[in-house]
Amino acid sequence: MSEPSLSEGLATTRSIRNYTDEPVTEAALARILHLATRAPSGSNRQPFRFIVLRDGPVALRVRQLLADGAREVWDAKRATNEFPDRAKDTPTSRMLASMDAYVANLATAPVIVLPCMIRYRDPVVTEGASIYPAVQNLLLGARAVGLGGALTMFHQFRDAEIREALAIPDEAFIAATITIGHPRGSHGPVRRKPLDQVVFEEAWGSAPAWAVDPPGTRFTGGPRPA
Amino acid sequence: MSEPSLSEGLATTRSIRNYTDEPVTEAALARILHLATRAPSGSNRQPFRFIVLRDGPVALRVRQLLADGAREVWDAKRATNEFPDRAKDTPTSRMLASMDAYVANLATAPVIVLPCMIRYRDPVVTEGASIYPAVQNLLLGARAVGLGGALTMFHQFRDAEIREALAIPDEAFIAATITIGHPRGSHGPVRRKPLDQVVFEEAWGSAPAWAVDPPGTRFTGGPRPA
Repeated sequence: MSEPSLSEGLATTRSIRNYTDEPVTEAALARILHLATRAPSGSNRQPFRFIVLRDGPVALRVRQLLADGAREVWDAKRATNEFPDRAKDTPTSRMLASMDAYVANLATAPVIVLPCMIRYRDPVVTEGASIYPAVQNLLLGARAVGLGGALTMFHQFRDAEIREALAIPDEAFIAATITIGHPRGSHGPVRRKPLDQVVFEEAWGSAPAWAVDPPGTRFTGGPRPA
Repeated sequence: MSEPSLSEGLATTRSIRNYTDEPVTEAALARILHLATRAPSGSNRQPFRFIVLRDGPVALRVRQLLADGAREVWDAKRATNEFPDRAKDTPTSRMLASMDAYVANLATAPVIVLPCMIRYRDPVVTEGASIYPAVQNLLLGARAVGLGGALTMFHQFRDAEIREALAIPDEAFIAATITIGHPRGSHGPVRRKPLDQVVFEEAWGSAPAWAVDPPGTRFTGGPRPA
């Protein structure tokens, strides 16, 4: 499989939640973590750390904690009927089916990475600027080497137990739970809001005439009104 | 100029703080903002918004606010001698000279983008996961179309005035100040910590043997001990 160009990679990297049994090699892991760390951070302090969960005893325990928390929360979400169109064949119902399987298989995802950030000051609203660019590079880097990943927050429901199991120090927090593996299925265009709903000029809510997506773009919320 | 591959783009996109006078076209802006919005966000809610500052009257006012705040803070930082090796020809001293010029020219950067995030719940530590992946895609997208950008937090020093000028609603916050333009100078490899200082397995601080950067990687903090 040939590697996409930068813009094609950006345009077509989507969440991959279903993986083949093919193992992720250490060389591939090293490569994508190297690419993750190329991201910017405030004053180039590089407060990002990456805990990789494979098949060691602690990893297996943390995987189970993640899976338990995910199942609990996902079952609760399901029960509230927060997603009303689950019976129809819609993008939402397909996402739900995909999430059901994803949560059921979380403990055995080929690799799980927990990106963490070390704080050097009290929390500020913009501190994510020094960890999530690296997280996005990690997901894009996975795509570059033929893997796929999904960004979740499933650590949040067993945060204290996971921190203890991995001896994460007080000054660091877990920023995400990322699963990585060889995609079953393929990358492809994602659905988003039209550009004129999210790009403003001169004032909030005021879209410039040039804020237009390329031809063929697919949108969230159904087809675009003419 | 041909576009880099995805992995080459990830490996070599660095902060570009010095721009030529060539204007950034509306087509290029639309393209890179489209690529920014391909990023993931929690439940695909897409709470990201992008305010583009070009040459309208409000943009000019906000540019001046940004430049005033940046100058004030940068001068103060300079005065504290926080950067002791400013006299030597080191990566830090070169960065300082580059920052001096960057701050001096901030008001007239070709384009400034203020990515914002709309909150739908009280602040949580991981909320940056729904804005900074799009911010990183924006910087990488700029690289893909031959532009360069730099991620800063200069809005923080005039936040209230900027919010008022742009009518940013209470539920949204400004997540970054990004300058974009045609690079004077080039992209290239960045310096980071060695992988075995930031990648752990089984426990915090415990680097796996496979966590090795590719040959030729340059590191922050001087050459790698053998």
